[in-house]
Amino acid sequence: MDQARSRLHLNLFILNTGHHEASWRCSEAAPESAVDVGYYQKLARIAESGKMDSLFVADAYALSRAIKHKVVNGLEPFTLLAALAVATERIGLIATVSTTYNEPFHVARKFSSLDHISGGRAGWNIVTSTGDASALNFNIAHHPGHSDRYDRAREFLETATGLWDGWSEDALVLDKAAGVYADTGQIYAANYKGKHFSVRGPLNLPRSPQGYPVLIQAGSSEYGKEFAAQTAEAIFTAQNTLEEGRSFYADVKARMSKYGRSADELKVLPGFSPIIGDTLAEARDKEAELDALTIPEYGLIRLSNLFEFDLFPYPLDEPVPLAQLPDVSVIKGQKARYQMYVELARKEKLTIRQLILRTAAGRGHFTMAGTAMQIADEMEGWFLAKGADGFNVMPPYFPGGLELFVNRVIPELQNRGLFRTEYEGRTLREHLGLKFPASKAGQLAF
Amino acid sequence: MDQARSRLHLNLFILNTGHHEASWRCSEAAPESAVDVGYYQKLARIAESGKMDSLFVADAYALSRAIKHKVVNGLEPFTLLAALAVATERIGLIATVSTTYNEPFHVARKFSSLDHISGGRAGWNIVTSTGDASALNFNIAHHPGHSDRYDRAREFLETATGLWDGWSEDALVLDKAAGVYADTGQIYAANYKGKHFSVRGPLNLPRSPQGYPVLIQAGSSEYGKEFAAQTAEAIFTAQNTLEEGRSFYADVKARMSKYGRSADELKVLPGFSPIIGDTLAEARDKEAELDALTIPEYGLIRLSNLFEFDLFPYPLDEPVPLAQLPDVSVIKGQKARYQMYVELARKEKLTIRQLILRTAAGRGHFTMAGTAMQIADEMEGWFLAKGADGFNVMPPYFPGGLELFVNRVIPELQNRGLFRTEYEGRTLREHLGLKFPASKAGQLAF
Repeated sequence: MDQARSRLHLNLFILNTGHHEASWRCSEAAPESAVDVGYYQKLARIAESGKMDSLFVADAYALSRAIKHKVVNGLEPFTLLAALAVATERIGLIATVSTTYNEPFHVARKFSSLDHISGGRAGWNIVTSTGDASALNFNIAHHPGHSDRYDRAREFLETATGLWDGWSEDALVLDKAAGVYADTGQIYAANYKGKHFSVRGPLNLPRSPQGYPVLIQAGSSEYGKEFAAQTAEAIFTAQNTLEEGRSFYADVKARMSKYGRSADELKVLPGFSPIIGDTLAEARDKEAELDALTIPEYGLIRLSNLFEFDLFPYPLDEPVPLAQLPDVSVIKGQKARYQMYVELARKEKLTIRQLILRTAAGRGHFTMAGTAMQIADEMEGWFLAKGADGFNVMPPYFPGGLELFVNRVIPELQNRGLFRTEYEGRTLREHLGLKFPASKAGQLAF
Repeated sequence: MDQARSRLHLNLFILNTGHHEASWRCSEAAPESAVDVGYYQKLARIAESGKMDSLFVADAYALSRAIKHKVVNGLEPFTLLAALAVATERIGLIATVSTTYNEPFHVARKFSSLDHISGGRAGWNIVTSTGDASALNFNIAHHPGHSDRYDRAREFLETATGLWDGWSEDALVLDKAAGVYADTGQIYAANYKGKHFSVRGPLNLPRSPQGYPVLIQAGSSEYGKEFAAQTAEAIFTAQNTLEEGRSFYADVKARMSKYGRSADELKVLPGFSPIIGDTLAEARDKEAELDALTIPEYGLIRLSNLFEFDLFPYPLDEPVPLAQLPDVSVIKGQKARYQMYVELARKEKLTIRQLILRTAAGRGHFTMAGTAMQIADEMEGWFLAKGADGFNVMPPYFPGGLELFVNRVIPELQNRGLFRTEYEGRTLREHLGLKFPASKAGQLAF
């Protein structure tokens, strides 16, 4: 465990053809693969051959007209990850599921099922949904505001935890002779009653190998950080520089003690998009090649959505109209990402086109072109300087960008003693060096 | 296709350790297998080796205290079936999903994803949920009434179909050079506005291989029959005798023409639980063995739930208190099953204990002990007499009861030309000889 704690953690962020928004247009891309389970199985096996802790898929509940110029997000997370669970043996499987338009009972049950199917490798990237487009797919005309969403998220997680904890570890008796399958004295109702949810329980599945999925948070706003400090076991975050990364890391970890948690109970994993070449020049050429395939119209849709402001009337080669943008206080969607983009445009005096390109590869996550050695240096630097406990690795294009990372960068990290050479555990909690939750059984009668 | 239409269809109904409620106590049972994906993969492969059309899993959203004496229902259907999809190649995969406590967008998307993952083998057993126990897990104090549930089911299906049909077959352009992934002119909003749902769409997944999952209905009440005649492509039903089966078959098929549908667009598949022995005596011994393992307390919970009436105060060996039971008009749950049980008890003058045993093997579905030859005779009889287009096969115990069916009964059906010897198609719709739905694209702008 001491050894495990001194190493960094690597999660693979899988997104259709790759994280660069033009990846689907590059020569090796097969855009039809975005709905091909065999393609995702291949990516999962490559990541597992690199002994990565986990893989993760994002999610969304609406289709944007930007689909004209951009590959569909991919298959639905629970069905995809269940299919990947039986095609892999050790790698963790993290699904993004929103607390905004779901029911705790269904979500708790699907995660329990995925944890059973994978033998204890499930993780939940807890997000709240943004945008009226999603709301309109769920009988709601307008999307709820930022603080409301986090209030619901908190209740959602409490409810789900109550359901998972309703089965004690010893509730299954399995005594065929006596005819006793389960000890109902060791199964407990959740009896959750809140503002948003009222759920009795118990869940209709026995406790899963990990007790419940590893809990991951992926928002970096004030609400997001506080929620993470209180409840999350890992956090995905977008940090553009090591300096910002260190400050975020220190901030989140410092918030934990008031919830009775120690700093190593939460792994901070910034997004990291490496463009790898045999030489720096080759890496930069690849980056330039991908950037050249970027479609400005798609970038405009993406920025207009984030800014909650229509950028189409503005000239691409003029500065981002910062004075016209809405104030962060009225942003209903991704507040932290909004602030990061505005800050980027202000600091670097970017035109709209430049901001599109600046965020095309990693959508605000740290992006770096370099050799495997340079990339390993950078990762080591973040890790040693307490800017990261590991990384959410976002290859710019699949499968090539992932293969390069696994075949070139991971061995370099292993040589430095920074990354495992074999899986030591079976479950995602073991990979991450996290404690197993004990069931809270005994509190409420069923 | 003519040949296909002259053959019967076989669906495997998978339920934890088997359909006899005491199956988990028999010598070969491993009750821990109910949450073991490897066990379900094994069952799926056995069914596929027998060239069965499909397999199907039931579902429920609440835990009953009866769990003391009965195996848990099993893994969550979407995660389980996705895991089975990649472990099989041809067999159809049917998930039970309730329209009562779900959202059409999520359900449509998960089915689309499962249909993509399985290469066109998904089916949806459309049910409505019964019982306050489920309602209490979804923020609702009391479970909605029978007709309300079907009203919501109808809207749910219309919404889901609108979402599936929103992507035309040719919407994916995949033109890397031009930078066009999808033709947004061939993607359409659902714009559904009803009493229960208001959903804009479009779905964020391209059209799946089958267009949408095969639609299956599983209620036999008046509402259920009408809903099936209008919308279903297959129907699971419980029929206790060939006579009842023929009358049900004729009734449902006769209702179809007013919806502009022909009789062969809906396959009637009664449940059928075969207890197979080398001799009739051996089969009856097996049945008696299983019946002897039945736990009366469990049966009492089961009957009390169905009757919406507490039978615990009544002596097991006295007649079922028919006069005390509520009238069918006030039954909120499974009306058709309620009527079947009451009719059974009345006709056969059963005590409570006898009714428990009479329904322990098949919960009201047709149950038969016999040799493979006798069972094939019975199935042929139902098929030729228009009592069934095929069967929902419910082995009393797994895996043995399924192995006997696949190794003894199916070859006999094949010898008679009643069942395929090889899969001729790739999709579940092809196995069932059903038409592919055309997208209704072109109606509403996105």
